[in-house]
Amino acid sequence: MERLRGIVPPLVTPLTPDGALDVPGLERLVAHVLDGGVHGVFVLGTTGEAAGLSYALRRRMIDETARCVAGRVPVLVGVSDTAVAESVELARHAAAAGASGVVVAPPYYLPPGQPELLDYFRLIVPRLPLPCVLYNMPPLTKVTIGDEVLEALAGEPGIVGIKDSSGDLSYFHAVERLAHRPDVGWSVFMGPELLLMDAVLAGGDGGVAGGANLFPRFFVRAFEAAEAGDVARCRALEAHVLEIRELYAVGQHASAVIKGLKSGLEALGICGPDLAEPFRRFDEAERRRVAALVEALAPLDRSGAASDG
Amino acid sequence: MERLRGIVPPLVTPLTPDGALDVPGLERLVAHVLDGGVHGVFVLGTTGEAAGLSYALRRRMIDETARCVAGRVPVLVGVSDTAVAESVELARHAAAAGASGVVVAPPYYLPPGQPELLDYFRLIVPRLPLPCVLYNMPPLTKVTIGDEVLEALAGEPGIVGIKDSSGDLSYFHAVERLAHRPDVGWSVFMGPELLLMDAVLAGGDGGVAGGANLFPRFFVRAFEAAEAGDVARCRALEAHVLEIRELYAVGQHASAVIKGLKSGLEALGICGPDLAEPFRRFDEAERRRVAALVEALAPLDRSGAASDG
Amino acid sequence: MERLRGIVPPLVTPLTPDGALDVPGLERLVAHVLDGGVHGVFVLGTTGEAAGLSYALRRRMIDETARCVAGRVPVLVGVSDTAVAESVELARHAAAAGASGVVVAPPYYLPPGQPELLDYFRLIVPRLPLPCVLYNMPPLTKVTIGDEVLEALAGEPGIVGIKDSSGDLSYFHAVERLAHRPDVGWSVFMGPELLLMDAVLAGGDGGVAGGANLFPRFFVRAFEAAEAGDVARCRALEAHVLEIRELYAVGQHASAVIKGLKSGLEALGICGPDLAEPFRRFDEAERRRVAALVEALAPLDRSGAASDG
Amino acid sequence: MERLRGIVPPLVTPLTPDGALDVPGLERLVAHVLDGGVHGVFVLGTTGEAAGLSYALRRRMIDETARCVAGRVPVLVGVSDTAVAESVELARHAAAAGASGVVVAPPYYLPPGQPELLDYFRLIVPRLPLPCVLYNMPPLTKVTIGDEVLEALAGEPGIVGIKDSSGDLSYFHAVERLAHRPDVGWSVFMGPELLLMDAVLAGGDGGVAGGANLFPRFFVRAFEAAEAGDVARCRALEAHVLEIRELYAVGQHASAVIKGLKSGLEALGICGPDLAEPFRRFDEAERRRVAALVEALAPLDRSGAASDG
Repeated sequence: MERLRGIVPPLVTPLTPDGALDVPGLERLVAHVLDGGVHGVFVLGTTGEAAGLSYALRRRMIDETARCVAGRVPVLVGVSDTAVAESVELARHAAAAGASGVVVAPPYYLPPGQPELLDYFRLIVPRLPLPCVLYNMPPLTKVTIGDEVLEALAGEPGIVGIKDSSGDLSYFHAVERLAHRPDVGWSVFMGPELLLMDAVLAGGDGGVAGGANLFPRFFVRAFEAAEAGDVARCRALEAHVLEIRELYAVGQHASAVIKGLKSGLEALGICGPDLAEPFRRFDEAERRRVAALVEALAPLDRSGAASDG
Repeated sequence: MERLRGIVPPLVTPLTPDGALDVPGLERLVAHVLDGGVHGVFVLGTTGEAAGLSYALRRRMIDETARCVAGRVPVLVGVSDTAVAESVELARHAAAAGASGVVVAPPYYLPPGQPELLDYFRLIVPRLPLPCVLYNMPPLTKVTIGDEVLEALAGEPGIVGIKDSSGDLSYFHAVERLAHRPDVGWSVFMGPELLLMDAVLAGGDGGVAGGANLFPRFFVRAFEAAEAGDVARCRALEAHVLEIRELYAVGQHASAVIKGLKSGLEALGICGPDLAEPFRRFDEAERRRVAALVEALAPLDRSGAASDG
Repeated sequence: MERLRGIVPPLVTPLTPDGALDVPGLERLVAHVLDGGVHGVFVLGTTGEAAGLSYALRRRMIDETARCVAGRVPVLVGVSDTAVAESVELARHAAAAGASGVVVAPPYYLPPGQPELLDYFRLIVPRLPLPCVLYNMPPLTKVTIGDEVLEALAGEPGIVGIKDSSGDLSYFHAVERLAHRPDVGWSVFMGPELLLMDAVLAGGDGGVAGGANLFPRFFVRAFEAAEAGDVARCRALEAHVLEIRELYAVGQHASAVIKGLKSGLEALGICGPDLAEPFRRFDEAERRRVAALVEALAPLDRSGAASDG
Repeated sequence: MERLRGIVPPLVTPLTPDGALDVPGLERLVAHVLDGGVHGVFVLGTTGEAAGLSYALRRRMIDETARCVAGRVPVLVGVSDTAVAESVELARHAAAAGASGVVVAPPYYLPPGQPELLDYFRLIVPRLPLPCVLYNMPPLTKVTIGDEVLEALAGEPGIVGIKDSSGDLSYFHAVERLAHRPDVGWSVFMGPELLLMDAVLAGGDGGVAGGANLFPRFFVRAFEAAEAGDVARCRALEAHVLEIRELYAVGQHASAVIKGLKSGLEALGICGPDLAEPFRRFDEAERRRVAALVEALAPLDRSGAASDG
């Protein structure tokens, strides 16, 4: 996998009301984001509800995504787990299916100390049959991949990037500086979409923007504006990213982002609004509110949108 | 399963240096705690490193424990997971192996809001083939099972108890009051061993004391002192519980408790000091320090120990 | 000051609607709690809204309390501050007014590290003209007075006790053990009233129960039941402590405890419901709800209450 | 005060070893930063150790700073307090001394809920004799000034800006959008210096960079690069901001930033290394390390530095 740059949406996992993979929904979703010009896709991340899916369903999601994407862009697969063996097993499945890389967060039940976290990555990376992207997600894993761990991992074969979902741009600056040392050469991706353009202006390689499930063209344009150093345009686009955030504020709790995305995709006719158990889809009133917001925001996603500035 | 009371050690999972189940070690461990008079055993909890074990190893641990215990005391099995289907699958395995009940914490990756947590338990409990003990473990799951959720679950068929590892005795008081309502009748267990006697004095049913892997007789005596309302004896015994805590302070990080227990069990000749990947056993110096502490504390575990105060 | 034991209510600071000290209200409050048999009073703590009062008002509160108490029980004065000089100045005022001791929390803006916290107490205690009670209040000061700091301070002249408002009974156990070493001899007080009896059963010396502003007799009885080791009676009384807590749940936010207490005191005809700026008193509906709860709970405070269990 | 933009250093408070104001040190500090081209100064903030100083010393710091600055740039004065009356009193002193504005954080002992925080600002702002800058500092005040509070305060007379020290650029984006609404027109300042350029690229008005005590020219250049939208230059300069951060990593605990700044100023011959009680200056070895870092970084602060990238 060459150094990845751009927008890599963390795909939701389309599900039928009874919890099976919605394959036609997934086909439409992949078509939608690839039409939008995204530079890769990332399945089985937090937005993809990986932890909430059975392993059988995770494997199926990998297979079907690989089939739908058909090599047009890189496919990254989240294999984060609390058990090393299960991560490795899923990574093997991903390799066999033709995925391009895997994404690995710290084990998320018993939180490792920093030296233990270094042990973890040193132990798991060589067993992975695909290039590895580190996944920093302290709100959910209860641990930050600290400076010293990153310093020790820099240049380790098998690691090709890092996705930072901490929301802490100070941390991102330090990571970016390390990752782009000539002897390291990692891709550095921003998680939260509100910070996508800041991250690219700061030298980052792109973003794993959840909103790109819905508005891939918009986020690709945001990436391009930042990559071009067009600060004024970034400011104008940032106002729209703040608007998109209202979709997630329709609900409460951490699951509201995923509920908002899936309800939005329903409004676009792409897939259904259901989440993996035990999380419920937004109710009727919430989904109507999401649909109204998506309709209002739809012009953002047109190519060459006049609304940009 | 009738209402359980007493000391139910959260068994460590004995492992060989290459990560397989150490069956002879497990046999010795089960014999050790049953000789000590414990009232049940709990496998695949936090202390049992469940999240760090492959599912195959978890199933083997269930089978072998059930075989070793052979019905002499109840066997509780932790089936907490982030995916409902995997929890249910493991619970079925536990039922088939002859376990007495299962223990379920909130899903521990994406933290559910309180109404979602209620959804979770309402959804999973009826699918479990064994009686269910709720597991409140906010430091690791990032969510507390709140008053309103418990109120709504009270009297739900299938739930028989709660284990509270929050360390918050104020919470425990409220839970105890609810659990012992005539229409509810749950067992209420304290997690942290420092609070075992306080919990029983306050009306709790017992404790899931990690230290009972090493010193089962001592913790059984502590339970009995509290059950008898012998406050002076409880104070004397509490001083020893504080001493036992020094075993865990040999290391750092959340894993140090498990490392301390396993190194202590090595010193007692019961099983090896190794943890599941990626966690390492204590090093030589640490293990010598644990061995010295265990030797000094050993008199605590004699029957009718004169040291009780 | 000899070793203090028993119930030491953290007195609210009665205020007029325009923010002045309500001296007649304070007189009634002091008479109420002394009639109830409390063993001391603590002014200018968290419940006393010290940080929200001007220094002039704090000095007046000290003077008037000392006058009202008139030496019948010890008067402890909170002098916690972010600036050492201001704490010392207030302590001097307290000494001149005839107070018995001062209570000092860690400085609460820039959180000191543990060695800095030790520096703090070593520096301030010798400058205080009255015996000092340490005040552990991590939810508000952002720092816990750790084991090593306490170990280093044990036996330091000038320190006579510790009030622990962490709500962490495991911490309390360790503190109690240290404080009651023969060479130390500190009083150990529990902050949260839900843990008062647990703390005394565990060897603690008493509690700084906010609810004792309203129901002093009840909390004195609770203390006595625990001191006598009457575990069954403690359980019965604990159920009532849980009921009292409903007063604080009438509102939201950290201020709700103080609002509940002051509204309750209004219902008892003792003082008005107003708080120091910027906090507002409960509104009419909330105060009616508090009044109803206080009326229902009033029998708890009768001497020899039949309701105890 | 017209809308302020640029670099406004949070001045340290130079102190003699016995804790008095070091007036010659302050004169040199003011001269140093004004020579460096800063656009204002902010005294008695977190970096200025306000909470740790007696009120007498705070008043003296205001007077002497106003005298030294002599109207050349705006002087902002931190008047954050836990007691409204003390804040107002200090603000009056600042007005009498000729200050330009005051800076007010939420009261930092008992944390207000969001509606209470709105009450607070609505109550205090009209009593302040100078324009008010809101100060968002959740790590120390335990509360964020939330969206709804800001929305309600927008357009309130008397408020002219906000300083955001949360370190959360997502929050900053939302604040910036609100603050720059035509009917609002607040200045928006970034606290953490690592995010200064990001904030200005995003539309912010400048930064309250602690490091500008030491390297005012450098931070002025950084501001200018961001204001000009020179993204490449910002990236080069950001690398140096990361280097400056090493000064603060010489120590531990929250106080290390202030210790690093004061030790650095000692190395530059501007003032002594002492902090307000109870915090100690860096020890000899730490100060040597700071001096070496400051020497290595000194070229950054030359005008037209060739090192910019």
